[in-house]
This record gives sequence, C-alpha cells and structure tokens, in this order.
Amino acid sequence: MPASEEVGVDRVVVPFDAREPCTRLTPVLDPDERREFSRAMLADVLEAIGATGMDPELLSTAPLDVDVPVTVDERPLTPAVNDTLVPGTAVVMADLALATPEAFSRLFETPGEVVLAPGRGGGTNALVTRHPEFQVDYHGGSFLEHRRIADECGLSRSVVDSHRLATDVDEPGDLVEVLIHGGGTSSEWLRDVGFDLDGKRGRLGLTRNGEPVGASR
Amino acid sequence: MPASEEVGVDRVVVPFDAREPCTRLTPVLDPDERREFSRAMLADVLEAIGATGMDPELLSTAPLDVDVPVTVDERPLTPAVNDTLVPGTAVVMADLALATPEAFSRLFETPGEVVLAPGRGGGTNALVTRHPEFQVDYHGGSFLEHRRIADECGLSRSVVDSHRLATDVDEPGDLVEVLIHGGGTSSEWLRDVGFDLDGKRGRLGLTRNGEPVGASR
Repeated sequence: MPASEEVGVDRVVVPFDAREPCTRLTPVLDPDERREFSRAMLADVLEAIGATGMDPELLSTAPLDVDVPVTVDERPLTPAVNDTLVPGTAVVMADLALATPEAFSRLFETPGEVVLAPGRGGGTNALVTRHPEFQVDYHGGSFLEHRRIADECGLSRSVVDSHRLATDVDEPGDLVEVLIHGGGTSSEWLRDVGFDLDGKRGRLGLTRNGEPVGASR
Repeated sequence: MPASEEVGVDRVVVPFDAREPCTRLTPVLDPDERREFSRAMLADVLEAIGATGMDPELLSTAPLDVDVPVTVDERPLTPAVNDTLVPGTAVVMADLALATPEAFSRLFETPGEVVLAPGRGGGTNALVTRHPEFQVDYHGGSFLEHRRIADECGLSRSVVDSHRLATDVDEPGDLVEVLIHGGGTSSEWLRDVGFDLDGKRGRLGLTRNGEPVGASR
C-alpha cells in the first residue's frame, strides 16, 4: 500500500493561547468573558476529539488546569507546533466550537501525506501530517501556504470539505454559527450571558440581551 | 428498505434571480458587474451539477439565454420553489461558486427524507426533499426553519457538512473564498476585473487593483 493511502493519526495536538485568547471578539466580549468563552470552546473541542477515540494533548502558552496532558510553550504558534510535529500528528485549533466527532473522524481518516481543513478566510483550522518533511507556517493565508509547502516537498495532499471545521470562532459574526450549529458548552455559555440570534437581517445576526451587536459582520 | 435510506435525486432545480442579482455585493461591484459575476457563478454551479451526471433545470425570475431548460417564475423564491417541488428534487442556490461535483454528489447521495446543506449565517444553500409534505420557507434563518418543518412533518432529516456548499457568495468577504478555493469561471472573472487576495489581515482580505476593498467583513 503506498504511503499516500495511509489513514488515521497517532496523536492529536491542540494549540491553545491561554493568555490572550479570542482578541478579535473584543467588540462583543470583555477580557474575562473572552477567557471563559475560549475555555468553553476548548472543552467542546477536546470532548469531540475524545469521542473519536483519540486522547488529545494540549500545547498551551501557559500552564492550564485541564484533564489532558499539557505541554507549555510560550513561543508563537508556528515554532511551537513545528517542534511537536512527527508523522501521524493531527493539529486542531482550539476555537472550532462547531466541530463534532464525525467531522474530526473525517479529518483523521482522510488519506494523504498532508490533509488540510481550511478555515474561512484562508487559514488552516486543522491538519494531519504523515510525512517528516512537512512543517507548518501559520499566518493569515496559511491554507495556500501549507498547500505550497506540501507541493514543494512532493507530498500527496487532501482537503477536507467541512463547514464545521472551516468555522474558527474568532470574529463576532462567527458567534452566529455557534448559536445555530453548536450543541455544546460554547453555545450554552453564549446563551447564558445573553446572546441570541437576530432574524431581521439577510443572514442571521446576533443580539445580546435583546440588542443587536457585532454589526460589523 | 425504509424510505429514509433512499439516496439520489431525480432532478436538480437552480433558482436564479435574473433581474437584481447579488445586491449585497453593491459595495464592491457595479450593477453590470454584479450581473456578469452572477452569470459566472451560475455557469460554475451548472457545470458542477452536470459533472455529477445530473441535468440541472433553471428556475429564473426572467427569461435567460442558457443551455439548460428554464422555467420563468416572477414570484419570490419561496412560492416559486414550492410549486416545483416533488419528491426526489434537489434545490441548489446559484451563487455557490465554490461547489464541486464531489460536494454535490455528497448532497445528492446523503440519505434522509429531507437533506439540508446550511449556508453561513443560517440560510439553506442546497436541499433535497424525498417526501411530498416538505415545503420550503426561505428567509434569513431558513436552515432552522427547514429543520423545524421537517420535524413537524415527522420526516427523517440529514445535514451535509460542507464548507463549499455553506459558502453562498453574496457579501464582499465571500469573494475571498472564491479567490482561495474557486477554480472556475467565477474566480477567473474576479481576477480579470482586478480582485486579489490581501494577506495583511488576520484572515485574508480583498484587494481590487491593489487597493483594499470590502473592509466591512
């Protein structure tokens, strides 16, 4: 069986910014709320990974009290992730509040030396590498960058077409997706602090305590 | 075999607004450009459907010179679609510029009396009905509405988790997705009139002739 037909992963790493999470949600959440909400999303992501049968590991910028193994690395995302990459690793962002076990299983079981799950706006929300040469380079347009890196290394690559994995929750408009499709801790948290859907615009908008918010979307 | 295990569709209907297409792209495209771009997206959608082996039909608000059968119905989307719905019908929006034959095949082959492909912001970008009782009701939050209608009729329902089908292109920020993931007429058209990706922001932004545009996303 050629290497490119390999499926599955050996480990799942979830990078997490424990110090300044969700900064782009500043227009609608204060610092304490952003911290709480980021923990709620992390809980949903870890639970969904666990439900696939995998044991996730956290790669955090600061110590964190969670029920999974934590590696603390204060460096930016790219060098921190590259130091932990070995063939058979999945890297999954911590703000995928819509992710389900089914979506993660599709990611893990997609063949390819590099498997990419693009995020809205050109990021890479999740990936699998099954080759020692592949390295990450996270920035605004990392999906195109990772595709280029895989091509330069001559690696077979696949893309996972998933709305749930494409929805990283980091702008106010993304909260709408959590309220529509999220069934876990994150959507509960949002409703508990007063957020709801606003049906008056072309796409559903967001209200907090009955008032429209996050109009910038 | 129970009805809910049925897969496949008999016909694929594509509603199209031939008079005032893509109004929410007004900030970045003039009326002629919006008309041209909507035709380019329609061509991509029809081609992708055709490549699945299905022959699409157009449901247009005005006569249109295209190579597929056209039914003209001037009424709003909801009554026009409901009048054409029979069991075994797929309804696919004309602005799914990222859609591929693979994404459409997943939609058509998903079992369920009602199959929904949600759009970003809570719309319904594509659906399949295999039951005579199901009727559509399009508006801002139609995904939740269609789920409710299916439940009220006691129908089995499925959801297709696809970033490509979730991306209806009707706001300036959506053009970024076309430039990243679209391989067809629409992305070519955008590049021809000067659009490109802008890598300076957290998510990829949009430029036209080198100047940032569509900052509202």
